Amino acid sequence: MPHIKVNEELPGIRSLLAFSPATATPLGELAEVLLRSDEGLSRAGRELIATYVSYLNDCFYCHHSHGEIAVCYLNGDRETVDQVRNDYHSANISDKLKALLAIAGKVQKSGKSVTAADIENARSAGATDKDIHDTVLITAAFCLFNRYVDGLAANTPTDLSSYPLRAQQVAKYGYGNHIFKEPQPAVTV
Amino acid sequence: MPHIKVNEELPGIRSLLAFSPATATPLGELAEVLLRSDEGLSRAGRELIATYVSYLNDCFYCHHSHGEIAVCYLNGDRETVDQVRNDYHSANISDKLKALLAIAGKVQKSGKSVTAADIENARSAGATDKDIHDTVLITAAFCLFNRYVDGLAANTPTDLSSYPLRAQQVAKYGYGNHIFKEPQPAVTV
Repeated sequence: MPHIKVNEELPGIRSLLAFSPATATPLGELAEVLLRSDEGLSRAGRELIATYVSYLNDCFYCHHSHGEIAVCYLNGDRETVDQVRNDYHSANISDKLKALLAIAGKVQKSGKSVTAADIENARSAGATDKDIHDTVLITAAFCLFNRYVDGLAANTPTDLSSYPLRAQQVAKYGYGNHIFKEPQPAVTV
Repeated sequence: MPHIKVNEELPGIRSLLAFSPATATPLGELAEVLLRSDEGLSRAGRELIATYVSYLNDCFYCHHSHGEIAVCYLNGDRETVDQVRNDYHSANISDKLKALLAIAGKVQKSGKSVTAADIENARSAGATDKDIHDTVLITAAFCLFNRYVDGLAANTPTDLSSYPLRAQQVAKYGYGNHIFKEPQPAVTV
C-alpha cells in the first residue's frame, strides 16, 4: 500500500506524477531529454542503462518498465535485455556500452567510486564526453526515480503482462504528461 | 580533475549544467519547484533535508552549497545547520522535521527501507502527505545531484569562503539558468 494517498489505478511512478504535477513536469522533461535523445548513445542503449541501474537498485517497477521499453527499441530482443540485467559482460552489446555500464554500476553505489581507469576504459572503447556525461546522469536520474517509487511504496503491478503496452506507448509518444493522464493514447502496432 | 572537459571556472554542478544545457533546464526547474515552494515545508526545512542527504552521500560541494543556502533562510543560524549534519536529534528544529529527516536518511540508502512506522511517526508529528512526498523527492533528487557532481568529478572549491555569496544569489534569485551563466547577478545584502 502506498505511503501517501494516490490514485492507485495508476501504476508506479505515474501515480506519484499525478499526485504532484508541479514536479512531474520537469521530471518528465528530464526523462524525455535523457532517454530519447538520438545524439551519441542510442535510445536502446539509454534504456538499457536505465534498466541495469533500476535492477541494481532492486526497483521492480522501474527495471521492468524500462526493460520493456528497451525491448521495443531492440525490436523484441528480450534476451539482450535480460543479459544486461544478469551479466552484461555476456550480452550482445558493444564494448563501448559495456564500459559505460561499468561506470553506471559504480555511480549507482556512489559518484566517488568512478575511477580515471573506468573513464579511460570507456574512451578506449569509443565513448565521447557526452556519452560519459549522459551515462552518469541517466544513472543518477534512476537513483532518483527508483527511490521516488519505492520510498513512497507506489503501487507496483506484479503481472508482467501489463508492462509491454505501457512500454509501447512510451516508445511511441515519449515521457510527456500524458503518461499519468488517463485515458492513454492508443498505440497502433 | 573533472572526468569530462567542462568550464573549470564554474564550480560543482554549475560546470555540468553549462556542459549540457538541455538537461540543465529540467534539473533547474525541479530544484526550483522542490526547494523554493512555500507550500507545506519551509524553504529552510527543504534546504536542511538537501544538506543532510548530501552530507550522508559525502558530497562536499552539495552539502556546503545547500548548507549555506539554509543558513541564508535561517538568518545566519549556522549552528542549526551544523547540528542537522552531525546529530539532527539535538538540533533546534521541529519534531516534524526530525521525523522527516529520519525518512530522508532511510531513502538515501534505499527507498525500500522506509517503514510504515517511519511514516506514522512523521504523521504523528504533523506531517501531511505533501510533506512526506516532498521529503522523499528532495532526498531522491539529491541522490541524483550528488552522484552527478561526484560521478563526473566536478571541480569542488575547498575554500569555504566562496560558498556564502553563491548561496545568497540562489536564496535571492533561485535555481534558474542564470546560475551557470556568468556574470552572476549582483546581490544586494
